[in-house]
Amino acid sequence: MNWRHWLPCLEWGRRYDRANAAQDGLAALIVTLMLVPQSLAYAMLAGLPPVTGLYASIVPLLAYALFGSSRTLAVGPVAVVSLMTTAALTPLFPLGSAAYVGAALLLALLSGLLLAAMAVLRLGFLANFLSHPVISGFIGASGLLIAVGQLKHLLGVTAAGESLPQLLPQLWLALPGMHWQTLLIGLLSLTWLWWARIRLKSTLQRLGLSAQLAGNLSKAAPVLAIVAAIVAVTLLQLDRAGVKVVGAIPQGLPGLTLPTLDPALALQLLPAALLISLVGFVESVSVGQTLAAKRRQRIQPNNELLGLGAANLGAALSGGFPVTGGFARSVVNYDAGAQTPMAGVFTAAGIGLSVILLTPLLHNLPQAVLGATIIVAVLSLVDLGSLRRTWRYSRQDGIAQLATMLGVLLIGVETGILIGVGLSLLLFLWRTSQPHIAVVGQVPGSEHFRNVERFAVIETPSVLSLRVDESLYFPNARYLEERIGELIAGRPRVRHLVLMCSGVNLIDASALESLETIAERLHTAGVQLHLSEVKGPVMDQLRRSDFLQQFGGQVFISQFEALKTLAPPRAHAASQAGDERKTR
Amino acid sequence: MNWRHWLPCLEWGRRYDRANAAQDGLAALIVTLMLVPQSLAYAMLAGLPPVTGLYASIVPLLAYALFGSSRTLAVGPVAVVSLMTTAALTPLFPLGSAAYVGAALLLALLSGLLLAAMAVLRLGFLANFLSHPVISGFIGASGLLIAVGQLKHLLGVTAAGESLPQLLPQLWLALPGMHWQTLLIGLLSLTWLWWARIRLKSTLQRLGLSAQLAGNLSKAAPVLAIVAAIVAVTLLQLDRAGVKVVGAIPQGLPGLTLPTLDPALALQLLPAALLISLVGFVESVSVGQTLAAKRRQRIQPNNELLGLGAANLGAALSGGFPVTGGFARSVVNYDAGAQTPMAGVFTAAGIGLSVILLTPLLHNLPQAVLGATIIVAVLSLVDLGSLRRTWRYSRQDGIAQLATMLGVLLIGVETGILIGVGLSLLLFLWRTSQPHIAVVGQVPGSEHFRNVERFAVIETPSVLSLRVDESLYFPNARYLEERIGELIAGRPRVRHLVLMCSGVNLIDASALESLETIAERLHTAGVQLHLSEVKGPVMDQLRRSDFLQQFGGQVFISQFEALKTLAPPRAHAASQAGDERKTR
Repeated sequence: MNWRHWLPCLEWGRRYDRANAAQDGLAALIVTLMLVPQSLAYAMLAGLPPVTGLYASIVPLLAYALFGSSRTLAVGPVAVVSLMTTAALTPLFPLGSAAYVGAALLLALLSGLLLAAMAVLRLGFLANFLSHPVISGFIGASGLLIAVGQLKHLLGVTAAGESLPQLLPQLWLALPGMHWQTLLIGLLSLTWLWWARIRLKSTLQRLGLSAQLAGNLSKAAPVLAIVAAIVAVTLLQLDRAGVKVVGAIPQGLPGLTLPTLDPALALQLLPAALLISLVGFVESVSVGQTLAAKRRQRIQPNNELLGLGAANLGAALSGGFPVTGGFARSVVNYDAGAQTPMAGVFTAAGIGLSVILLTPLLHNLPQAVLGATIIVAVLSLVDLGSLRRTWRYSRQDGIAQLATMLGVLLIGVETGILIGVGLSLLLFLWRTSQPHIAVVGQVPGSEHFRNVERFAVIETPSVLSLRVDESLYFPNARYLEERIGELIAGRPRVRHLVLMCSGVNLIDASALESLETIAERLHTAGVQLHLSEVKGPVMDQLRRSDFLQQFGGQVFISQFEALKTLAPPRAHAASQAGDERKTR
Repeated sequence: MNWRHWLPCLEWGRRYDRANAAQDGLAALIVTLMLVPQSLAYAMLAGLPPVTGLYASIVPLLAYALFGSSRTLAVGPVAVVSLMTTAALTPLFPLGSAAYVGAALLLALLSGLLLAAMAVLRLGFLANFLSHPVISGFIGASGLLIAVGQLKHLLGVTAAGESLPQLLPQLWLALPGMHWQTLLIGLLSLTWLWWARIRLKSTLQRLGLSAQLAGNLSKAAPVLAIVAAIVAVTLLQLDRAGVKVVGAIPQGLPGLTLPTLDPALALQLLPAALLISLVGFVESVSVGQTLAAKRRQRIQPNNELLGLGAANLGAALSGGFPVTGGFARSVVNYDAGAQTPMAGVFTAAGIGLSVILLTPLLHNLPQAVLGATIIVAVLSLVDLGSLRRTWRYSRQDGIAQLATMLGVLLIGVETGILIGVGLSLLLFLWRTSQPHIAVVGQVPGSEHFRNVERFAVIETPSVLSLRVDESLYFPNARYLEERIGELIAGRPRVRHLVLMCSGVNLIDASALESLETIAERLHTAGVQLHLSEVKGPVMDQLRRSDFLQQFGGQVFISQFEALKTLAPPRAHAASQAGDERKTR
């Protein structure tokens, strides 16, 4: 593969002009306004100092702009990945300790390396393990878990835990110690943010603003909440009254940081890094594809893997934590008119300016406001209707989704997703392990063969015709052995069995061994196996084994040919008469 | 389900007569002669006192006779399961200690409970996870590993290890301390057993014996080796010269034993118990089915699970260790004319008599003879040609088999099988994650639609017809999104996309979401999605979602109908002319 393939920026960069720059600049401004409070909040969610959220929104964005293929994806800290970061690190280190911060860098490093390796080794298909019901259940339950976890900031109490059974009793016990000024700030922020989310745009439009401007302005609602809260805290000296604030934030751009390079720790964090990478990739690709399709553009999964990998390596080396493409921010970026990843570069510049200029002003920002920001952001991820729809559509998928949700809520994020993935595979295996196998007979007056249980067809007593509606591979190889044994045991007059392979797209080595076993067992029972309607690629593969020489039967071009040869017209006619009572 | 279904013995027991009894009795005699040395040897292989092998050949056989459905399966200790028992227990307890013996009972108990649970919950399909290449690689590599492990008994040295990198250096270092009398006994046994295996039957036939008698007598070759070795050791007082012998074996039938009931230990042993259960079940069912088919009988996988479960529970309660149906012994049982599981009951009686009467005579049996018995038994499991055949037939299956073998040999049995299972699933997912998707066009003068790249067909510029040759489910749902995005991006004139679903047997919730996403993305790009040739069951399921109302397109009975509606004859004819250069 051409090395230029790995640098999509060479392509869009060549045609970059002032019009693009104006549009990207506007989008970047709006995304920056949205990203400042979010990055502070998600750092808090990840159990890290607020400034790391800002750091994670500078270099990663630049790295993604070089290697990513989506024109409009907005990379940075996101809620679910931040939650997964806390879940991976809190069992190992005290929250907020230097070791914790170093391990977060290591997690970003591992995640970046894994994503880059998946890009180079073309292992993006690994993300397929995360089926839609699992991802949907995971994100919904994570959102709920995050929201419950943020209640402590609104109540002004302390509580920690990775699941509802840990969190809820602690919150309940801490309730008497809640801080009413904090609660007031939290509830006001929550109400404002919620109202702004669902009403602000239409209200501004009613005041005469254009839809575009109203939409953009409404994205700044959290900034307004922050400013108002900071002013209130400063004027009323609420921090002295016990309202927890963000506190001193180091001023200036991030320096080069090196993660804790401890091999034992790296090995311990590897499973979490893999889950974070896959979940981040899936979330990012799905929003990226949706946005690209709207403009009939394309994104390349391998470039996305490399882009996200580079972003996480950037985060690891500049004091951040694991990042990925965020859903809501990307949509805002797109709606605001972003044309190229240069919008991300401008956003990084905006955040860079903020970290230089604004951080002293953020000292008095109450944690309750950040908690409210998170709650409003994540509750939109909770979609209980999704479970109902999945359940109604397919019981198996519904079980996988429900199990993922319960696992996340009751045990924790990592266990929950592993339960979901394991269960999807099990249920999938179970479902395909018993394929539909029909005994077929000839539709009178035609060359067609259909299911004897659904159609009035002619059966031939000495020839059993079976149609398998599935590829033959290890999940169902043994079932085939059993079913054929069963069918033959009940038909003592049968001398030939023809397997009609029109629905068989693949015969793997397990199924080949099963076919050999079946042929041998049939042989000892005095029945000869034949095949019909074998597809070209399957036939090519069978020729690479000695099955076709060994099994002693023939491969017929069609089921009709098979019957014509094995039960010639005269015998056939006789058997028709003999079996007329069977026809229905 | 009727409770009688779980007791197949009620059925065959009702018609049991003297003729059956005579045949079963003869078979039992031969199997007993074979089983005495094997059960001592496999107990040694499992790291347990020799008598436990005899114990594991009494109650388990009775339990299987009650619940099992195979007429001729010979249950008891087998090589691979004994190796898995050692592998599970040696990291935890000193070899041969009381704790080790207790843990072996616990392993049998867990294995029995798991098998019984799988029977009741109908989870036998779990065995499908073990594809043929994985099982074949696992058994072959285990056989080699066992053979290498037994060399220490032939050399009269000590060495321990769960993999070749552990075993080989130890054997090499111990070589100078080898005991030549032991080696002589070992090599003589090995030569005799090997010769007997390949030549004894034909030699006896040449001496005038019937094929049947010669075959039966040759099965007693290990007994002859044992008798000769015991006589030699006793006469020459070789045990005083340092030849390691079996030593004192407790006399009498096993009493009721209770496994170590330690919940923490049970949890630790659970994965090993699950692997032992699955491997034992697969080995047992495959030989059981092969033998049953020869007489047009049937075995029921659920009854087999219960039968093997009961056998292991029996082993746990009577001083044994995990057991299953043995391949070689079952074939001998069948060939010797066993008619019903009563042959197993007679065998149990034979072993019971042996443990009462013969054990004092076994004191001077050299361990080297048992080692030689094991080596000859397991080397027949090693089939290197199998790997070559699998590799030639399918690269993916070959990789899975090779990885399993290397894993077993270089790391250990459990890791090896887990690597194999994991890799099969990964490769399977990879293979089905990119299904064949063909752009199809109309074969001139017919209603058929075929691949544009293989046939000279007519394409319609405003309608893109796609045929997907695979069920749509989570492994390939996202690929479909990508491919369709790609195909549409390159065809700006397309207004309708028809997905021809003749090869689609299933649309799961993931694929449904993908279809919704695809329909939505196409919509924003000005293209309408339609379906054609959707199968009945798939259509039933789609009706349980609101996809059919939401996607805005139509479901056509055939691709031909779709084209007739979407590109009516007049426009169609015009487009034919316009696209004639494309036809080939």
